[in-house]
Amino acid sequence: MTVAPAIILVSPQLGENIGAAARVMANFALSDLRLVAPRDGWPNPAAEAMAAKTLSGPVEARVFDTVDAAVADLSYLLAATARPRGFDKPAMGPRQAMGALRARAEAGAAAGVLFGAEAMGLLNEDVARADAILTYPVSPDWSSLNLAQAVALAAYEWGLGEGEAPHAGFDRLSPPASKAEIAELAEHFETELEASGFFWPPEKAQSMRLSVRAAVGRWALTAQDVSTLRGMIKALARGTRRKPKT
Amino acid sequence: MTVAPAIILVSPQLGENIGAAARVMANFALSDLRLVAPRDGWPNPAAEAMAAKTLSGPVEARVFDTVDAAVADLSYLLAATARPRGFDKPAMGPRQAMGALRARAEAGAAAGVLFGAEAMGLLNEDVARADAILTYPVSPDWSSLNLAQAVALAAYEWGLGEGEAPHAGFDRLSPPASKAEIAELAEHFETELEASGFFWPPEKAQSMRLSVRAAVGRWALTAQDVSTLRGMIKALARGTRRKPKT
Repeated sequence: MTVAPAIILVSPQLGENIGAAARVMANFALSDLRLVAPRDGWPNPAAEAMAAKTLSGPVEARVFDTVDAAVADLSYLLAATARPRGFDKPAMGPRQAMGALRARAEAGAAAGVLFGAEAMGLLNEDVARADAILTYPVSPDWSSLNLAQAVALAAYEWGLGEGEAPHAGFDRLSPPASKAEIAELAEHFETELEASGFFWPPEKAQSMRLSVRAAVGRWALTAQDVSTLRGMIKALARGTRRKPKT
Repeated sequence: MTVAPAIILVSPQLGENIGAAARVMANFALSDLRLVAPRDGWPNPAAEAMAAKTLSGPVEARVFDTVDAAVADLSYLLAATARPRGFDKPAMGPRQAMGALRARAEAGAAAGVLFGAEAMGLLNEDVARADAILTYPVSPDWSSLNLAQAVALAAYEWGLGEGEAPHAGFDRLSPPASKAEIAELAEHFETELEASGFFWPPEKAQSMRLSVRAAVGRWALTAQDVSTLRGMIKALARGTRRKPKT
């Protein structure tokens, strides 16, 4: 069974946009709304007003403190952004992106789409953790899309694709790693690379860290890959100090 | 030259929806907004606020007293409605409808889309004057679409049909690694993992080697990934013996 994707709003500012997002989610049979640190707290009367009863109906909104917590159970993640970030990630329009997401969902992977705050969009570190970028074919002269409208276009494309023929080819043998496993792997990499002096010189350390995270997030790792890689890191970090047991 | 269609809002109630419609029109290079008897008059501060400057920019809003006056110069008209009205008119989803509209526009016909008021939609007499019906593939359980969202989906489909706008700046994926680079990476992994005692116990060493190679071969690494990974291996293999240069 295909599980519909989660819509994750990171630090949304206006309750109106949260409510409008919930309403259009219901229009296209999406129900999993996740709010990371909404500015005005939760519940929010302005959101309720715009949601036209969907927040007490088909849409379940849950609040999280961090993006990490909000995506922990997902294994395929899109980040909606208008600005290229220099990450080496595939960028797709809504139609293609929802197709990719559906293919994963049909293979049993829980999936979601990250949307940033109204004023500034997603942080680089949030984009870095995604598998791919969702971008909108907006006019270059007027590219700033309202948050709820961005959710609407994704929801619409999700809805359109429902009922279409399944996309074959994503039925991996080993299930994809969850975002929590990926985050732990990136953490492990970072800790050991830090100890090894990899992040050098200091003025480049931050961007090196980000590019390690972006790379780890892009490799479509399986749960088995993560466990293999963590064993490899552990072994390498002990370096030649460790002798094989005899 | 194709003339973009007019968006005609009949008796819109909320300035917020008018403004949001204008903003999303600008996102998809539509500029002709027509308002028939807006409830709160015109101009409308709530509309200005939601329009994010588009009403004094690319979108021109004009006010008309009647639908007749608003559509007088058009020769192909769609009516957006969720409810069948028993008229003998073709009904199309947004994609097909925008395609039909484009075909007319390319043949030189000025075209437009009628949207009704928030609470009750279009009157039967407004639907009756249209050439075809635009309807949305919404969930039967939750079919009431916000006015500005309805405009957004039509604008998006119009924009898509205008030819995929290039996603500027996103086409810089670094080229995939060559098979030789992948082989060298696997070799490098293997050598250092060997030295670290990773391939243990001996009776499993061969299959562990194979699974490392299989994993490395599967990650769709770019040339940049390979070089990053090799740097990481080198750093880790030196382990904590290496101190950062100071």
